[in-house]
Amino acid sequence: MAGIATLDAASPLVPRLPLSSATLFTAKAQKGLTFAQLGEALGRDEVAVAALFYGQAQASEADIQKLAQTLEIPQVVLERQLSGFPDRGHMVDLPPKEPLIYRLFEIVQNYGYAYKAVLNEKFGDGIMSAISFTTKVEKEVDEQGTWAVITLRGKW
Amino acid sequence: MAGIATLDAASPLVPRLPLSSATLFTAKAQKGLTFAQLGEALGRDEVAVAALFYGQAQASEADIQKLAQTLEIPQVVLERQLSGFPDRGHMVDLPPKEPLIYRLFEIVQNYGYAYKAVLNEKFGDGIMSAISFTTKVEKEVDEQGTWAVITLRGKW
Amino acid sequence: MAGIATLDAASPLVPRLPLSSATLFTAKAQKGLTFAQLGEALGRDEVAVAALFYGQAQASEADIQKLAQTLEIPQVVLERQLSGFPDRGHMVDLPPKEPLIYRLFEIVQNYGYAYKAVLNEKFGDGIMSAISFTTKVEKEVDEQGTWAVITLRGKW
Amino acid sequence: MAGIATLDAASPLVPRLPLSSATLFTAKAQKGLTFAQLGEALGRDEVAVAALFYGQAQASEADIQKLAQTLEIPQVVLERQLSGFPDRGHMVDLPPKEPLIYRLFEIVQNYGYAYKAVLNEKFGDGIMSAISFTTKVEKEVDEQGTWAVITLRGKW
Amino acid sequence: MAGIATLDAASPLVPRLPLSSATLFTAKAQKGLTFAQLGEALGRDEVAVAALFYGQAQASEADIQKLAQTLEIPQVVLERQLSGFPDRGHMVDLPPKEPLIYRLFEIVQNYGYAYKAVLNEKFGDGIMSAISFTTKVEKEVDEQGTWAVITLRGKW
Amino acid sequence: MAGIATLDAASPLVPRLPLSSATLFTAKAQKGLTFAQLGEALGRDEVAVAALFYGQAQASEADIQKLAQTLEIPQVVLERQLSGFPDRGHMVDLPPKEPLIYRLFEIVQNYGYAYKAVLNEKFGDGIMSAISFTTKVEKEVDEQGTWAVITLRGKW
Amino acid sequence: MAGIATLDAASPLVPRLPLSSATLFTAKAQKGLTFAQLGEALGRDEVAVAALFYGQAQASEADIQKLAQTLEIPQVVLERQLSGFPDRGHMVDLPPKEPLIYRLFEIVQNYGYAYKAVLNEKFGDGIMSAISFTTKVEKEVDEQGTWAVITLRGKW
Amino acid sequence: MAGIATLDAASPLVPRLPLSSATLFTAKAQKGLTFAQLGEALGRDEVAVAALFYGQAQASEADIQKLAQTLEIPQVVLERQLSGFPDRGHMVDLPPKEPLIYRLFEIVQNYGYAYKAVLNEKFGDGIMSAISFTTKVEKEVDEQGTWAVITLRGKW
Amino acid sequence: MAGIATLDAASPLVPRLPLSSATLFTAKAQKGLTFAQLGEALGRDEVAVAALFYGQAQASEADIQKLAQTLEIPQVVLERQLSGFPDRGHMVDLPPKEPLIYRLFEIVQNYGYAYKAVLNEKFGDGIMSAISFTTKVEKEVDEQGTWAVITLRGKW
Amino acid sequence: MAGIATLDAASPLVPRLPLSSATLFTAKAQKGLTFAQLGEALGRDEVAVAALFYGQAQASEADIQKLAQTLEIPQVVLERQLSGFPDRGHMVDLPPKEPLIYRLFEIVQNYGYAYKAVLNEKFGDGIMSAISFTTKVEKEVDEQGTWAVITLRGKW
Repeated sequence: MAGIATLDAASPLVPRLPLSSATLFTAKAQKGLTFAQLGEALGRDEVAVAALFYGQAQASEADIQKLAQTLEIPQVVLERQLSGFPDRGHMVDLPPKEPLIYRLFEIVQNYGYAYKAVLNEKFGDGIMSAISFTTKVEKEVDEQGTWAVITLRGKW
Repeated sequence: MAGIATLDAASPLVPRLPLSSATLFTAKAQKGLTFAQLGEALGRDEVAVAALFYGQAQASEADIQKLAQTLEIPQVVLERQLSGFPDRGHMVDLPPKEPLIYRLFEIVQNYGYAYKAVLNEKFGDGIMSAISFTTKVEKEVDEQGTWAVITLRGKW
Repeated sequence: MAGIATLDAASPLVPRLPLSSATLFTAKAQKGLTFAQLGEALGRDEVAVAALFYGQAQASEADIQKLAQTLEIPQVVLERQLSGFPDRGHMVDLPPKEPLIYRLFEIVQNYGYAYKAVLNEKFGDGIMSAISFTTKVEKEVDEQGTWAVITLRGKW
Repeated sequence: MAGIATLDAASPLVPRLPLSSATLFTAKAQKGLTFAQLGEALGRDEVAVAALFYGQAQASEADIQKLAQTLEIPQVVLERQLSGFPDRGHMVDLPPKEPLIYRLFEIVQNYGYAYKAVLNEKFGDGIMSAISFTTKVEKEVDEQGTWAVITLRGKW
Repeated sequence: MAGIATLDAASPLVPRLPLSSATLFTAKAQKGLTFAQLGEALGRDEVAVAALFYGQAQASEADIQKLAQTLEIPQVVLERQLSGFPDRGHMVDLPPKEPLIYRLFEIVQNYGYAYKAVLNEKFGDGIMSAISFTTKVEKEVDEQGTWAVITLRGKW
Repeated sequence: MAGIATLDAASPLVPRLPLSSATLFTAKAQKGLTFAQLGEALGRDEVAVAALFYGQAQASEADIQKLAQTLEIPQVVLERQLSGFPDRGHMVDLPPKEPLIYRLFEIVQNYGYAYKAVLNEKFGDGIMSAISFTTKVEKEVDEQGTWAVITLRGKW
Repeated sequence: MAGIATLDAASPLVPRLPLSSATLFTAKAQKGLTFAQLGEALGRDEVAVAALFYGQAQASEADIQKLAQTLEIPQVVLERQLSGFPDRGHMVDLPPKEPLIYRLFEIVQNYGYAYKAVLNEKFGDGIMSAISFTTKVEKEVDEQGTWAVITLRGKW
Repeated sequence: MAGIATLDAASPLVPRLPLSSATLFTAKAQKGLTFAQLGEALGRDEVAVAALFYGQAQASEADIQKLAQTLEIPQVVLERQLSGFPDRGHMVDLPPKEPLIYRLFEIVQNYGYAYKAVLNEKFGDGIMSAISFTTKVEKEVDEQGTWAVITLRGKW
Repeated sequence: MAGIATLDAASPLVPRLPLSSATLFTAKAQKGLTFAQLGEALGRDEVAVAALFYGQAQASEADIQKLAQTLEIPQVVLERQLSGFPDRGHMVDLPPKEPLIYRLFEIVQNYGYAYKAVLNEKFGDGIMSAISFTTKVEKEVDEQGTWAVITLRGKW
Repeated sequence: MAGIATLDAASPLVPRLPLSSATLFTAKAQKGLTFAQLGEALGRDEVAVAALFYGQAQASEADIQKLAQTLEIPQVVLERQLSGFPDRGHMVDLPPKEPLIYRLFEIVQNYGYAYKAVLNEKFGDGIMSAISFTTKVEKEVDEQGTWAVITLRGKW
């Protein structure tokens, strides 16, 4: 429907990202591939692939191999750039200023204690892990319009 | 499984909440009802009921009537205390300090741009509404253990 | 359409407001009057009346007289409580956390420099006054739905 | 009346803006065009064009074509630089320090709850969208002097 | 022209002020005296008297005697409440949110380095004392309108 | 008495200033001129000239011509660098950390409400403009030593 | 060696703690018991008991029974006050200002990335849980003096 | 098990680190050595070596010699780069955003006062030094899974 | 020379202080004693006594006995109020706003790295303890005027 | 005892320092001189020399001449780089993060009001100047170990 997510070379995000982000986004733009297409190529969810592009998730050997092949990047380059452990958390301002990301934060702000109360009643004292965690984005259309559905699934 | 979510009378949350929160939580504790049970009584999702208890959602006439009946609170009291428009956003620190709520914030912090990229590719430029929005909490158990599943569904 | 704006007695706003706010909002709730109705009674725009209720604008002698009459508050009480000069700016968090108010702030955040560029090109170097300033809220309905229209008019 | 809004090459704004901003502002300065003139050329409001220059709005195919033509920039350059989705919200400090933009923020700070009260009474609980949103700037002159009039129109 | 500066009993300033502020402002309101009139009674500049009312300056024995007499407060009460050393700096938010006070801060923000450059060229390296310091407020009227003139005089 | 205000090439101020600041300060240092001498050459107050050097004020055509002549900078360079509208407010930290500038801020912090009370009593509700505003710095010497006197004059 | 940890009735911590904290600390002071002694009585580590006193951990049925018995508090009071789910994270300033707690924070600040590097090399990408977590405090004495030893043990 | 901790050349950490960090991490990556292996080579704990790599600890002459030998870096280069005194504390955000480091901070936030109470009862008033301090990381495996154990040992 | 340091009952400091502060300062004011006089009575430095009054230092048994006697406070009251371990660090804003305290902070801000460089050169890597620490205040008068001399003495 | 204080070329301090800092520290490292040795060469206290190196103090003509000679830097270079007025206050974070500097800040935090009380009692209302100010660092050794002694001497 829309286009390809890219990384602007002058973006204020760039100094907050690892080397691999520029490498991967440049190739993605040249190939004209969406994260959904890349997700299919890698056999992983598209959000996980996007997180990997932003340096928030660690690539497995298989991921690197498929990324190199799909994006036509020399595998040795990707291996070197993706060999480290992710250093997370530098991207988003506090509070988030980007409107789409702010909306997600606003849900946490307004529903946070409601989630906590319901989760505590359902599971007892504890937390939902943000690390043993998977997530996905889906699109639903009904008579009221188009809906974005985000599912968060974390270990208790 | 676990117990009843309550509102401690000395909690630092109290000065951030409307009058109705104390009224509703006190009655909830006395009746020993979970939000799931209250949700059934009101015909609404338990997270929405919890949000209403924390003053983050507006009660309809029907909600008030059923709450008064279920919790044995004089209806006139609830009507007066729930008549205003919600003044949202006072509850959660910036950044959230409560560990469970922090985990939700951390998901936004680490996956924010991944969500944005995937949502933009799926829907084009825009945002997912945090207002035309529904949400639910579910429990899943598999061989790896227990999982909390939160679904966010917002109008694009 | 909707109801009456009130001031919750336990609201975190109360310690940020002058004495007169509690007096005025209590009477408004008892009378069941909207700001539009109060605006008609005072011959002033409803937003200006709301600003006066929140202690952000100074009441004239005529305002006090009409408010006392319309809300059946002893005039001497209002005169005493409204005699001071407004001490503005304590109400809104930085950044605003209330979702409706956040949206207004987000407009400033995203369009701020666009407004500045267009205003500078239209008027030269300078500012639009927020003091010699009037504002109004209107409702428009078209085939796309309902629209809120806010007009800001400030001296250059 | 006044001059042309430009982007200083050493401005602290530059690292907060996409590549396209420098490209567009440089051409605008060379052509000596105001946003009003560009708005006419593009058939869009001048504020929307300014927002596009600052990377806060997405350019349509038609916008790109007309910008390339009017500003004599190779269309392929603009297409590449404007192909991404806007990453908004990086420009304005919190609180805004620029005096003109601060005045707009001050209006939100002082009138925020007054707007909320009147909007809630007119429309019920909810928000005015900052995304399904249009805005314009007009100039009025009367015996008291010159006035800047900003209109905000958002979906409820 | 205007009225009497008072201290609202519910003002968010009150918890930031010493006991003496409430005592003095209550008496001032009852007597209906301006700071100019009090300044004449005390033989001190009106700004200094206002600073004393807000607990930012220390009262001399003579000040206390004249204040007690002029405001008809038992001298022993004032002596006890004004005997301590001022604990300054608690009143103003950072940045100031009150519009009038913000304007003064904005002058510092925008002209700060210009003042520093000119003062350094006139006096060499050093500072203008904010402690060995006097200040006054004057009113000027000319064909352009009314002007407020604030003079700051500090030891180098 | 002292020397010439300059702009250190490695100063943390440089990335907060427009291109013109480096151009102007470099020439000023080479010519060895004070702001007082430049003020005479331009027929403007020295503080206004300093503000112009720091990009906080807009240069008129006459200013540019005289600056070019006095500082022997090609006029076309100054015209290009000074053609934009000032983007103010980036220079000073919050709170100011520079000791001299902090002292000015401390005056606002400690005397802010005293100024407000006296100004309100003298002029009624309103503000002193920081835009329709002139200012000057003078030196006084008496038996107690040397005094810096800053005068702020703003439209009410 | 030293004394009994107590909770000052005027402490700025009190408004950040649940009701149970005052109840428990008052009884602890009256009984003159250390956390080590309470830990023995409850069969839990002393740090866990202290965390329970500060409302940071949930009491089991057995904990409540033993606390009631040891501290001679009516069991029904403790059951009511300790029935809720802990609302954590309100106690410590950001950054911590208390010198002892600051030292712990300083260790995180200075060794944070060293811990991360070593943990990643030992365990791969992931985190050490702060929830599935136990901790203890021990005292060691050698010829260099007295040492405090804190052990953190968290699930990977 | 996992891999080698590296320093991404574009990492936002780099501008917060001394020159030696890049030198050391580059050589470490080329040699493919873990901190455990380097710790053995230097006869120091692996966490201490990691802290040295991040510029948080001072290298002794012996450390430099062994590092030069083990990593095949010219000793003169290391001597020059490691000759200064560590300038600590620049690496970690406040609050920490990196999830692993945040967990350590969360322990301080939630257990801070519990540690203080137990330490005070065990040692009297005072602090645990973060300077006369050693620390280590160990791995434990039991039927519940894998545990990371961090020991902090500081002079009282 | 000057007067007695007191604690205003409405001071914003009060909620940041333990119960004992009000007890001690009230008695000090009634007795009209300076900290120098109290220091003599206790055989401790006056700054240490003042720190004890503000709850920043722990009182020994001997201190309590002498304070009870000198200030005529029942010893049992002081014993109860001073029995806990000091919870330090709540008093001063960040940055300090009180002008006298700000000056001390400004010395740290401006001379911090100079102290560090000189201390490192004199003592090697390490810190000066703020806990194993004594301090005193002295007055010197010379032909240039009056000087305050503060000595900080900390274990390396 | 220890070594030479240097300025790491990649230090996060560098962008906060003037050009002269790099020049001076480079020469100091090459010459292998301590601040004590430089202080002797300049006839000034070593802390004052360090402050000058960090751009926090102004160099006199004599200072420049002796620095040029001692460090073998062309005098014309130093004259140009040290000709401006110091722009202070950029170096230290708020709160300070460097452990040694934090300890000094902690002394202000914990003893601030104790110093104020004692200074007020000794000198009356006022402040100790941080500008008309000298300071020195000394080393004392006794049976308890090594002590750092910092003396602050400021005009009242």
